[in-house]
Amino acid sequence: MTETVVSSATREVVIGFDRPFVIIGERINPTGRKKLAAEMAAGDFSTVARDAIAQVEAGAHMLDVNAGIPLADEPAILAKTVELVQSLVDVPLSIDSSIVAALEAGLQVYKGKALVNSVTGEEERLEAVLPLVKKYGAAVIAISNDETGISEDPDVRFAVAKKIVERAEDHGIPRCDVIVDPLVMPIGAMGQAGRAAFRLIRRLREELKVNTTCGASNISFGLPNRHGLNAHFLSMAIACGMTSAIMNPLHQEEMTAVLAADVLMGQDPNCLTWLNRFREPAAQGEAGGARGERERRRRRG
Amino acid sequence: MTETVVSSATREVVIGFDRPFVIIGERINPTGRKKLAAEMAAGDFSTVARDAIAQVEAGAHMLDVNAGIPLADEPAILAKTVELVQSLVDVPLSIDSSIVAALEAGLQVYKGKALVNSVTGEEERLEAVLPLVKKYGAAVIAISNDETGISEDPDVRFAVAKKIVERAEDHGIPRCDVIVDPLVMPIGAMGQAGRAAFRLIRRLREELKVNTTCGASNISFGLPNRHGLNAHFLSMAIACGMTSAIMNPLHQEEMTAVLAADVLMGQDPNCLTWLNRFREPAAQGEAGGARGERERRRRRG
Repeated sequence: MTETVVSSATREVVIGFDRPFVIIGERINPTGRKKLAAEMAAGDFSTVARDAIAQVEAGAHMLDVNAGIPLADEPAILAKTVELVQSLVDVPLSIDSSIVAALEAGLQVYKGKALVNSVTGEEERLEAVLPLVKKYGAAVIAISNDETGISEDPDVRFAVAKKIVERAEDHGIPRCDVIVDPLVMPIGAMGQAGRAAFRLIRRLREELKVNTTCGASNISFGLPNRHGLNAHFLSMAIACGMTSAIMNPLHQEEMTAVLAADVLMGQDPNCLTWLNRFREPAAQGEAGGARGERERRRRRG
Repeated sequence: MTETVVSSATREVVIGFDRPFVIIGERINPTGRKKLAAEMAAGDFSTVARDAIAQVEAGAHMLDVNAGIPLADEPAILAKTVELVQSLVDVPLSIDSSIVAALEAGLQVYKGKALVNSVTGEEERLEAVLPLVKKYGAAVIAISNDETGISEDPDVRFAVAKKIVERAEDHGIPRCDVIVDPLVMPIGAMGQAGRAAFRLIRRLREELKVNTTCGASNISFGLPNRHGLNAHFLSMAIACGMTSAIMNPLHQEEMTAVLAADVLMGQDPNCLTWLNRFREPAAQGEAGGARGERERRRRRG
């Protein structure tokens, strides 16, 4: 029964086997969002603020925060973004950067136990990121690639994940604080990408006994009806044991997938969250609505 | 690599591990359809004919045919329905009745290798239905309940399925011709119904090595947004190894679930079926459309 506990100053979220699925909002990320990148580089955080609030209102249990802007002072901007977002919403954050100094700047100002996104199996990254994770008492996302790149063989990716988990333990980080990203490839280019991900997710849970996460939308790259594919990828991965995802909580089909999967995995007691989301307004009444809101808060906390 | 081969006079369909999922159209069934029941009892098969054609056009690979009308001559009506449907569409049929004489009347007129729906683990049913299945060289759906009713314990249901498979073998019916229905309970009444079904489907595949089917819509009984729940139940069950379902192919959300699951399980080569279904019409062109139709036909056959 692996559980990863992360927190903000005032709220704890548990990612775990036999827990409701944890949605990590992906929107605060300037990669591929030119306007947002320009705003953040110029010190305008109004879009960041709106995205933070909207994602939590839509049901995100955590938020990923990334400030990867070419030629900008990423450590300073990431720290400022973390502080701003923590002043607006009380969900725990995932601090997301490929630059170690930016991760540390974010961790320095973070209130609570953060999730660090991410470390790979590359030797240099392991020895740079894991000491930071330990120093700040954080949890970490482990991406299952290394110096040789991303293997198409799920057994090789499992071996890389195992290496990262063991190295984390060498650094004093318990395996329950390592969440593995199995790396989802576009199925349009690699027809076995779905099966490979499902098999790897199951092995990570049953053999390595770690929590898992992924960026789900990669699966549908280049194909039509991406939301439909992403949604079923999510619910199928949850059936195989996936416990969290970095995703857009404003997308209805994907959110329905997660809510349905929670019902079907027995993680939505009395289907209360489902009922409150989909019951006809006329049938809800005041009591039901209020109870539902309390229930949602309880489930997230 | 279990494969159940069923056929009409002119077309074979294979239900199997590592095959595209098989959709068995559920519409030709007067249970709960008063108007249809009255029509069929009066010898009017116009709705049956329309339902047969519409379901195959919508993507059904097989059709279930049921003529359970209180106080009517079910054997005669079922036989007539089977003959009519076989004259209109070339997909294999599932002959569906709780009356043994009706099953035999249907089998007598059926052209090809039928699927018999169904036998339970009750002693009397086993010894009445299995000899018929053997006599007509059919395949059979095994429902995992017996004299004691439907157990809530998936281990008991697994044991009942095992008993039916072994008894079928005693009657000379190979296990590849027994498709087990794990019996899906409404999740609104039984919160662990989804998990129980997923676990049972996996065990039926990995331990008993049989194909599986189910009536998926039962899972959502009494809850809002039934199509959303049914759709994710289907894709999650497919991720756990389910190989067919008795369902309504006219429901878009459920059909999208099956198409997405085929893509994600690596059973839609080059995503051709997905592309042909969801690609923008402008991008398709004549060649793509024609190729898609051939592809769909090939996959069903």
